[in-house]
Amino acid sequence: MTQAIRAVRAFDIRFPTSRFLDGSDAMNPDPDYSAAYCILDAGDGLEGHGLTFTLGRGTDLCVHAIELLAPKLVGRSVDGIEGDLAGVWRDLVGDSQMRWLGPEKGVVHLAAAALVNAIWDLLAKRAGAPLWRYLAAMAPEEIVAAIDFRHISDALPPERALELLRDRAPGKAARIAALARDGHPAYTTSAGWLGYPDDKIRSLAEAAVADGWTAIKMKVGAALADDLRRAALLRDVLGPERLLMTDANQVWDVDQAIDWVEALKPFDPYWIEEPTSPDDILGHARIRRAVRPVRVATGEHCQNRVMFKQFLQAEAIDVAQIDACRLGGVNEVLAVLLMAAAFETPVCPHAGGVGLCEYVQHLAFFDAACVAPSAEGRMIEHSAHLHEHFVDPIRISRGRYLAPERRGFSIEIKPESREAFAYPSGSAWAGA
Amino acid sequence: MTQAIRAVRAFDIRFPTSRFLDGSDAMNPDPDYSAAYCILDAGDGLEGHGLTFTLGRGTDLCVHAIELLAPKLVGRSVDGIEGDLAGVWRDLVGDSQMRWLGPEKGVVHLAAAALVNAIWDLLAKRAGAPLWRYLAAMAPEEIVAAIDFRHISDALPPERALELLRDRAPGKAARIAALARDGHPAYTTSAGWLGYPDDKIRSLAEAAVADGWTAIKMKVGAALADDLRRAALLRDVLGPERLLMTDANQVWDVDQAIDWVEALKPFDPYWIEEPTSPDDILGHARIRRAVRPVRVATGEHCQNRVMFKQFLQAEAIDVAQIDACRLGGVNEVLAVLLMAAAFETPVCPHAGGVGLCEYVQHLAFFDAACVAPSAEGRMIEHSAHLHEHFVDPIRISRGRYLAPERRGFSIEIKPESREAFAYPSGSAWAGA
Repeated sequence: MTQAIRAVRAFDIRFPTSRFLDGSDAMNPDPDYSAAYCILDAGDGLEGHGLTFTLGRGTDLCVHAIELLAPKLVGRSVDGIEGDLAGVWRDLVGDSQMRWLGPEKGVVHLAAAALVNAIWDLLAKRAGAPLWRYLAAMAPEEIVAAIDFRHISDALPPERALELLRDRAPGKAARIAALARDGHPAYTTSAGWLGYPDDKIRSLAEAAVADGWTAIKMKVGAALADDLRRAALLRDVLGPERLLMTDANQVWDVDQAIDWVEALKPFDPYWIEEPTSPDDILGHARIRRAVRPVRVATGEHCQNRVMFKQFLQAEAIDVAQIDACRLGGVNEVLAVLLMAAAFETPVCPHAGGVGLCEYVQHLAFFDAACVAPSAEGRMIEHSAHLHEHFVDPIRISRGRYLAPERRGFSIEIKPESREAFAYPSGSAWAGA
Repeated sequence: MTQAIRAVRAFDIRFPTSRFLDGSDAMNPDPDYSAAYCILDAGDGLEGHGLTFTLGRGTDLCVHAIELLAPKLVGRSVDGIEGDLAGVWRDLVGDSQMRWLGPEKGVVHLAAAALVNAIWDLLAKRAGAPLWRYLAAMAPEEIVAAIDFRHISDALPPERALELLRDRAPGKAARIAALARDGHPAYTTSAGWLGYPDDKIRSLAEAAVADGWTAIKMKVGAALADDLRRAALLRDVLGPERLLMTDANQVWDVDQAIDWVEALKPFDPYWIEEPTSPDDILGHARIRRAVRPVRVATGEHCQNRVMFKQFLQAEAIDVAQIDACRLGGVNEVLAVLLMAAAFETPVCPHAGGVGLCEYVQHLAFFDAACVAPSAEGRMIEHSAHLHEHFVDPIRISRGRYLAPERRGFSIEIKPESREAFAYPSGSAWAGA
């Protein structure tokens, strides 16, 4: 019998992280890491899980948007979906009435991403493979057929995407073997949250170095004196060789960003992340020209492939930080990985939050195996929070992600956690 | 006693326009013009009304987002709001958790716009003035104090905004008197919807010319042969002097747009609107350079002031088409009007839908009175639909908007229409 999507269920799951200032930064002082979560039920125990990451209030908007989009999947055969991945994607992001609410951005795009990623989880599970290996096993033609090239064909026509993938075919098996053996480079953000006191930052950074981390990111942008003191502290712990990233979470205007990064230069920041509005391509380009040799990184709020296209065309960034569910899921991530390769810009996925580390490891491993022209400057972000809630959590060793080995996209949250953190009915929210 | 916002009510109102293909274009084949509508209740009969325009499905997302943002207004004094307009605006768009869902774009920004515009409706009503006159009576310092300059100060620092307004002070009274007497130039989109047959387009265009319209917009982008035939038909009706605008509603990729506009050139299009993705600043810039002398217009999907800033900086557009509720309401519109003036780019507001004509007339009249450096090339879009549902509908004479005279923002929908078109409970939706 043909397998088909029988039902889609959506859930509002929130973790009360604001109680401990985990994840605090200059723009986001009190996040409750949350997920609009969905399960595609294909019967016979075959499910696809997906989520879109949120910060608490408004998660219900994404949950409801998932419910509004779900009828586009219910009743479809799994084979039919696998055979028309770009078409399914365009159906989800191009609803003729809901498109107005984005288009391809904000709540409706975040919701589409949860569903899209649930599809890929389901397909990889059905194939019995971790998502990154499922992707790596697809032929270049199949990868290209999963991408909607609308509005990016001027920078990446399909035939160029195909050429890039074919060019990377030699050595693919060896790269996959090396990734499975050695894992993938990473950096950690867990030491440098803005809400943490200095002594906590120091002890966390010392522990990170002892654990083998060679790159740490700190949050900046609230008060320059604090930033300089913390940067000195972290550089002291790191020594001259390890990398110190900085992340301003969009709080600066363009000229202010240039001045502030200049002040941080004595501590040799590897990159400045989100120095200004995530929408400001031209502003990033100006900042990049001004703050060299400090690199400019952005992407966690980059809403879609059209914006990434321009960040690359304008030579506005040194590092493309894809997000697994800000972009419209795997299909759109594939488009951005290929554009980044075409522009020879390394991809360092955004992670942290809840589930983002689990998600992006698959994307980074696939990129390293099949797309990226070089391994240079490529790292996956790491944050230590909330992995205990996942059925197949990330595994870190000496500052590297180990290759995920279980089938699917690693995004499945344990049933007991889904129940305890259900908002507002779960036990974690009792009395809140 | 100090007046304060006592309650905020939100409504889902949908008009079944898709039944008649009104408003159909190449991207939006079947819109149900809708509104996420809100009423701020300040007691003693003082209310502020606002809406954000939508296309049907998903309107409930905006309604719920309004409800989530409403607590930021309830309990605030009206005087306090009027005295801190930029602060209130930033509270609405900068919620530390909901901001993640945009930021400043999509559902949460559309919802904020409804509330912001309801505030301005309330303030103008309290002052007993139509909004455009209320704005025109504000001192330049007060206008500047209503604007959040975050992320645009590189293009428009507050002191430059102040200077622009002061430079335009001479002659303001005379311009206001002329606007009150003669109205404001406009063009109509009501003849050229893509779903209409040729004979309907011809008869509507002939009627429009007979009514004194000198500029008509047609929808293009679905099939070139159809576009060429309709453009010939409309040029025939219009004669060589009247203007023919074209609107592709984002359907083309960059190179395709250039080719298609080239093919339309024999019919002398005044502008091409939304030739590609509304996010593609660099793409618009390339199209603009290629299709001269045809102008490039965009803005109805331009999500915020940061995007408009770049469209202007990149010299990507000839015409800035602000939307009253895609941007975050009046405050953000003010920022864009001033940036457009700084870059000497005419503003031709996007209208149509439901309520957009009522909204934008106030913004265009204020712009003409107090901001725009010249009257050249400035027109308000007009569409004939759904005005009968408004308490204070637009008034058109010989192809011009007459100045709104009643107090407020003209956006109040009649109670009986709010009831009949309430979704899904209203009589218009019975049996749907």
